[in-house]
Amino acid sequence: MSSNEQSNSSGSQTRRNILKVAGTAGLAFGGRLAAQDIPPNHLAPRPAPQSIRPLPEGRRTFGYAIIGLGKYAVNQIIPAFAECKHARLAGLVSGDRQKAERIAAAYDVPTKNIYSYDNFDDIKNNPDIDAVYIILPNSLHADIAERAFKAGKHVMCEKPMATSVEDAQRMVDASRRANKQLMIGYRCHFDPITQRTIELIRAGHIGKPRVITTENTDALSVEDPSGQWRVRRALSGGGSLMDLGIYGVNASRYLLNEDPIEVTAVIAPSSNPIFSEVEDIISWTFRYKSGALAHGNSSFSTAATSRFGIQGEKLTAVMDPATGYYNNTFKASGGDEVHVLQDPMFQIPALNQFSAQLDHLPEILASGAPSKATGLEGLQDVKLIQAIYRAAALRRPVSTDWGDWRKI
Amino acid sequence: MSSNEQSNSSGSQTRRNILKVAGTAGLAFGGRLAAQDIPPNHLAPRPAPQSIRPLPEGRRTFGYAIIGLGKYAVNQIIPAFAECKHARLAGLVSGDRQKAERIAAAYDVPTKNIYSYDNFDDIKNNPDIDAVYIILPNSLHADIAERAFKAGKHVMCEKPMATSVEDAQRMVDASRRANKQLMIGYRCHFDPITQRTIELIRAGHIGKPRVITTENTDALSVEDPSGQWRVRRALSGGGSLMDLGIYGVNASRYLLNEDPIEVTAVIAPSSNPIFSEVEDIISWTFRYKSGALAHGNSSFSTAATSRFGIQGEKLTAVMDPATGYYNNTFKASGGDEVHVLQDPMFQIPALNQFSAQLDHLPEILASGAPSKATGLEGLQDVKLIQAIYRAAALRRPVSTDWGDWRKI
Amino acid sequence: MSSNEQSNSSGSQTRRNILKVAGTAGLAFGGRLAAQDIPPNHLAPRPAPQSIRPLPEGRRTFGYAIIGLGKYAVNQIIPAFAECKHARLAGLVSGDRQKAERIAAAYDVPTKNIYSYDNFDDIKNNPDIDAVYIILPNSLHADIAERAFKAGKHVMCEKPMATSVEDAQRMVDASRRANKQLMIGYRCHFDPITQRTIELIRAGHIGKPRVITTENTDALSVEDPSGQWRVRRALSGGGSLMDLGIYGVNASRYLLNEDPIEVTAVIAPSSNPIFSEVEDIISWTFRYKSGALAHGNSSFSTAATSRFGIQGEKLTAVMDPATGYYNNTFKASGGDEVHVLQDPMFQIPALNQFSAQLDHLPEILASGAPSKATGLEGLQDVKLIQAIYRAAALRRPVSTDWGDWRKI
Amino acid sequence: MSSNEQSNSSGSQTRRNILKVAGTAGLAFGGRLAAQDIPPNHLAPRPAPQSIRPLPEGRRTFGYAIIGLGKYAVNQIIPAFAECKHARLAGLVSGDRQKAERIAAAYDVPTKNIYSYDNFDDIKNNPDIDAVYIILPNSLHADIAERAFKAGKHVMCEKPMATSVEDAQRMVDASRRANKQLMIGYRCHFDPITQRTIELIRAGHIGKPRVITTENTDALSVEDPSGQWRVRRALSGGGSLMDLGIYGVNASRYLLNEDPIEVTAVIAPSSNPIFSEVEDIISWTFRYKSGALAHGNSSFSTAATSRFGIQGEKLTAVMDPATGYYNNTFKASGGDEVHVLQDPMFQIPALNQFSAQLDHLPEILASGAPSKATGLEGLQDVKLIQAIYRAAALRRPVSTDWGDWRKI
Repeated sequence: MSSNEQSNSSGSQTRRNILKVAGTAGLAFGGRLAAQDIPPNHLAPRPAPQSIRPLPEGRRTFGYAIIGLGKYAVNQIIPAFAECKHARLAGLVSGDRQKAERIAAAYDVPTKNIYSYDNFDDIKNNPDIDAVYIILPNSLHADIAERAFKAGKHVMCEKPMATSVEDAQRMVDASRRANKQLMIGYRCHFDPITQRTIELIRAGHIGKPRVITTENTDALSVEDPSGQWRVRRALSGGGSLMDLGIYGVNASRYLLNEDPIEVTAVIAPSSNPIFSEVEDIISWTFRYKSGALAHGNSSFSTAATSRFGIQGEKLTAVMDPATGYYNNTFKASGGDEVHVLQDPMFQIPALNQFSAQLDHLPEILASGAPSKATGLEGLQDVKLIQAIYRAAALRRPVSTDWGDWRKI
Repeated sequence: MSSNEQSNSSGSQTRRNILKVAGTAGLAFGGRLAAQDIPPNHLAPRPAPQSIRPLPEGRRTFGYAIIGLGKYAVNQIIPAFAECKHARLAGLVSGDRQKAERIAAAYDVPTKNIYSYDNFDDIKNNPDIDAVYIILPNSLHADIAERAFKAGKHVMCEKPMATSVEDAQRMVDASRRANKQLMIGYRCHFDPITQRTIELIRAGHIGKPRVITTENTDALSVEDPSGQWRVRRALSGGGSLMDLGIYGVNASRYLLNEDPIEVTAVIAPSSNPIFSEVEDIISWTFRYKSGALAHGNSSFSTAATSRFGIQGEKLTAVMDPATGYYNNTFKASGGDEVHVLQDPMFQIPALNQFSAQLDHLPEILASGAPSKATGLEGLQDVKLIQAIYRAAALRRPVSTDWGDWRKI
Repeated sequence: MSSNEQSNSSGSQTRRNILKVAGTAGLAFGGRLAAQDIPPNHLAPRPAPQSIRPLPEGRRTFGYAIIGLGKYAVNQIIPAFAECKHARLAGLVSGDRQKAERIAAAYDVPTKNIYSYDNFDDIKNNPDIDAVYIILPNSLHADIAERAFKAGKHVMCEKPMATSVEDAQRMVDASRRANKQLMIGYRCHFDPITQRTIELIRAGHIGKPRVITTENTDALSVEDPSGQWRVRRALSGGGSLMDLGIYGVNASRYLLNEDPIEVTAVIAPSSNPIFSEVEDIISWTFRYKSGALAHGNSSFSTAATSRFGIQGEKLTAVMDPATGYYNNTFKASGGDEVHVLQDPMFQIPALNQFSAQLDHLPEILASGAPSKATGLEGLQDVKLIQAIYRAAALRRPVSTDWGDWRKI
Repeated sequence: MSSNEQSNSSGSQTRRNILKVAGTAGLAFGGRLAAQDIPPNHLAPRPAPQSIRPLPEGRRTFGYAIIGLGKYAVNQIIPAFAECKHARLAGLVSGDRQKAERIAAAYDVPTKNIYSYDNFDDIKNNPDIDAVYIILPNSLHADIAERAFKAGKHVMCEKPMATSVEDAQRMVDASRRANKQLMIGYRCHFDPITQRTIELIRAGHIGKPRVITTENTDALSVEDPSGQWRVRRALSGGGSLMDLGIYGVNASRYLLNEDPIEVTAVIAPSSNPIFSEVEDIISWTFRYKSGALAHGNSSFSTAATSRFGIQGEKLTAVMDPATGYYNNTFKASGGDEVHVLQDPMFQIPALNQFSAQLDHLPEILASGAPSKATGLEGLQDVKLIQAIYRAAALRRPVSTDWGDWRKI
């Protein structure tokens, strides 16, 4: 047994310490390396070691029912429960009973907790289920969310939360009426590199960010069933912007910590018949009161790209990849120096993004802390996406100066 | 829900295809880039999509009891069962009953399957347990392995498998007598980047490899309980070489596909009293019949390094990190071109190395395929490690020309 | 003396060979990696070695007079003559006689070849001077170019060639009347990484490029004299777009091999008084007949950024830096593979970009080959820049569908 | 004209601003950035932003005669004079009169300053020549150096300075007798990344370095005339160690700031007949009084590798490439942070290494400052190289504990 293989928990402690130093002292990039920050014995910053990182909480008490058993649900979310501290997979909702039973068997979900869309409303009587997680085509989110709230459950919903502002608002209203949480599945908010990037920017390490460029693309496979609904407007509500561009829309806001006041946009006409209902390539530019600009583009016909440029007054930075499931990287440079944040080699990120997201809901319910990914956050993105589409259609700038959505 | 979030299974399919192309056609680096390999429609290489990757097998049938509940067991191995297809955590063996009960509760292990070292031999009557996984200080491996074989169980054992050639041989013999598998925990053999690196080298893409350099170091924290036994010779059998250098010893062999015929070695005397029993920094050089050389070093007092240089006749390559839990990278360069293999951004490696290692034992038992990490493999490393120590002590080259261990 | 230090000419031979292979066979990435391109003996691609790379041509026969002795002239262009094969520094034109004399002394330029703007027209009688190179504030280019053509000299002119379409057209017309070459200083066309990037794209290695993103920024120092004229509209004709964004405008065209048909643009209002005359941050989006989009931004208030994203249907690529004086890098990725072009470590690029640009003019004059950077090329960029400004002012798309400028 | 092209001094302004910020906050990485580590004057070389960087000194007064007109002389050194501030190419010494005349014509060297080996001693009467630069096969260095000293000239000599300790000592003695400088062509000492790496290590930023690994290889082309003498012992004095390994030998010393006390070494026997006289692959390990170890290897049959691993107690670092003509990179990492030093994109390193080396000799002659690359430095490397060969031959450790050579 090697000590490389033992370095995990002290490693993550170290990271936490670094963050604390950077956070409180608010100092320069890399803080720890200046002489006064380095204790004489370099091992000292390693905290009292602990052999064991927090165990999952046995019978984890917060039960989710997953609505929709597509690839993302089955390949990413459901396995991620294994790494959760507070949440467990407690139920499944699907129109495909057989598939649901196979998954239930694999993950020890009692068959009594399998629901169809017909008997879904009975879920209100099932105390195993505290929340539902909606992983359906976009246009189906609002109705099932309303039903879930009516059944007295909290709701986690994949992004984009809805295909219209009205639907999104309806979901927010239903959440308020039911006095239940509505959380949107913005997984990047739970990515450690994204979190530290935001901290570094807020602490001023790259200077004031002034120009953002986001690129989120993937070549859609239409043979893939999941590719098919994405190009049918009735289900998706739009094309690459709904599916991929939304990462850039959301990121522009968290990187700049400001909402845009105006948008212009361009859609590239496609001659490919699979894009007869929704856009393939789209590009938009947000203008901000502070004088910043944010450009984004998304596409369904170019190879997977996930890159954010963040131009600050002191340093210029790039995240590439920016929105991966893991392995995201932040690189800030100026002159002949480059500073990089990346996942360390002996600390498994595993399902962290996903597990952390799943744990977030029970955590804020227990602590009363504000959610990182509220329905209002999701609503704002839906509004911005609709404004982008409008600007592209009208071929002129469209105002997005709606006041502070956080105060709605 | 975004298609980035749906790209996983087609992504891994793509990777598999690439490998096949590279393997059979023996063509260009990465296969897909040669003109004849690129179908006219770029979407075509994506195989018929499948929504769902293979589900875990519900009640996974192959049960492991973990022996030793230190950090590596609790933080890496035990959580990795969640991603296994065939294996499950079925029992725990520990001298600390309370800790074992906490872990059992968190992972739904029945308390009846908790053993102490006193009643460990009763495990033979427990049909839930098919194998044990020994994650104890090195010198304790052999005895408990013998007891496990006597109890009729298969044995997975952490590396180094033993602190002496005699102990290692005793384990191999016990395995044969019991007719049960002995597998050593060489996790890198299950790392996808390592696997593809080996394939690329064997296929001749970097030319014949002639010089290997391996560096495996980590600054040991002696406040950490796991750091303490590593510097006590009676438990560890040696210092950084046993713990970290073994990665390089093993890698030199799989990168060159050849075993050394001679070794020289140097130990740097340390004035640090914590290294009074075992070496801190050690360096060795293997000489090979083919004319290759492999250098390795390991250290307990320098910051975490995990780098392999692989000098081929056509291209020069580096893995950095080479032995991380994930995120390993292979980079081959020549002239002004660089080719990199890395984990793709939208495919979670998660616990793959670990889960794949745990699944390997039931898989070879079912298929009769040869093991990737046999006891004989482990024995050869123990012999080489002892030869390194001898060469350092004698201050002269020591022969390791023992014939082909695979034929023993 | 080490062979590393001797590897230069075989190295550059190798590169040349690779290019040839890629160019003619049109095969795998970088040519050499496809099976049929790899000769059995890996040393074979190294051509018959030659000890000596082409010597400069002693008294290089083509004489330039540099007009304007600012930083770029003195720090980059004038020293670059040392690496030229055909061109030499033959004269200086400046309003600052003392400075001109200092430079003349340092570079062995006869004082008789120093001109002021008053006596500049006498240059026509000076047979030492074959061409002038105009490195003045943008609005001063056209008049002096006309005078140079009248004096019977060829003209190299820094980009942007002019501050209005009329001025640019006037320069093109004067060139035709005088039957002398007009070449614009697009140094990237002479960067080896840029050249190979274009070849790779044209050969289809990343698939059809569909989305381009260009970022070119630098924090302007107003204490620097060269910063001052850049924010005075009468001299610069505009802000960051004229100065930096032009790289992206030009690159969008050479990367896509197509000219845009429409542009939209946004200028971020600045509260900084130094930007009272010209824009600081600007962003634009070109739409192309083929269905491609190209986004660009430039800024005078964010740290130096020089990055091009090139999304192809097969691979996604990034150049970062894209427009450095040297050291530019092209990285194409797909799945888990990354392919990189970069300057090799044992081949000095030195002043290559600059020297190659200076040599280009005498080369095309001698060979009759078409110029890589004609006045018409420069005129097209001036027209596009003006269209960007108009689109920003009008806050609506502006057509740039002017037909093929190459046929004008 | 673009400000990227003007960014040299604004670039340094930006950097200065960053430095100021870092300076007041007192933190950031990079050694130079921590306030206390910045000597008051290190900013001094950067002038108050000025349009013009220092001009070469017209008729540069210090004249070199180059002895030996092989590739390295013609392709690297001779062109580098163009960037020198103090030195000029004043003479040529060659057995090939025609070649010398061609080069003289290209670089405006008067033919009277061309010498053969027959009339070389007449150089003493030539006041144009202040120093000679010997770029000949290794075994020819000592005799011609003695003749040059006798002629009253300073001597710059390529490394390795000689093929035996006796020859090296003879050169040192001749230098003393003649009271003329003997400088060895260790170009890495003039590489800016190497210089900053050394500063960072000395300032403690990676902690005490304990383990060094150096790899310097290149596949020798025997068709190349320069490859031929390298494998003839009478000319080269040895194989890859003399030619490439010497970089690692020298670097181990400047990275650790300590000389080894003992060496072990291994030569891999080669079956390739071209290596019948000298070694192809060799590996050595230095042991240091401080407890550090340094491993090095070199090879003539593997693709170009130039990598130094530097394991410190706090951070682990790598230079890759480490000894390129430019473009060298230093990367230090710990946990999830990586800090990189690299050549900036808008500052041409051009011929800096070489020009700076050429200027160094007149500079120390003028200032009386100590040389960075003395004959004693070269002698120490020759002694270490001979010790490596001896250790390999004797197959046992060889002492190198000769006391401090700096005090000889």
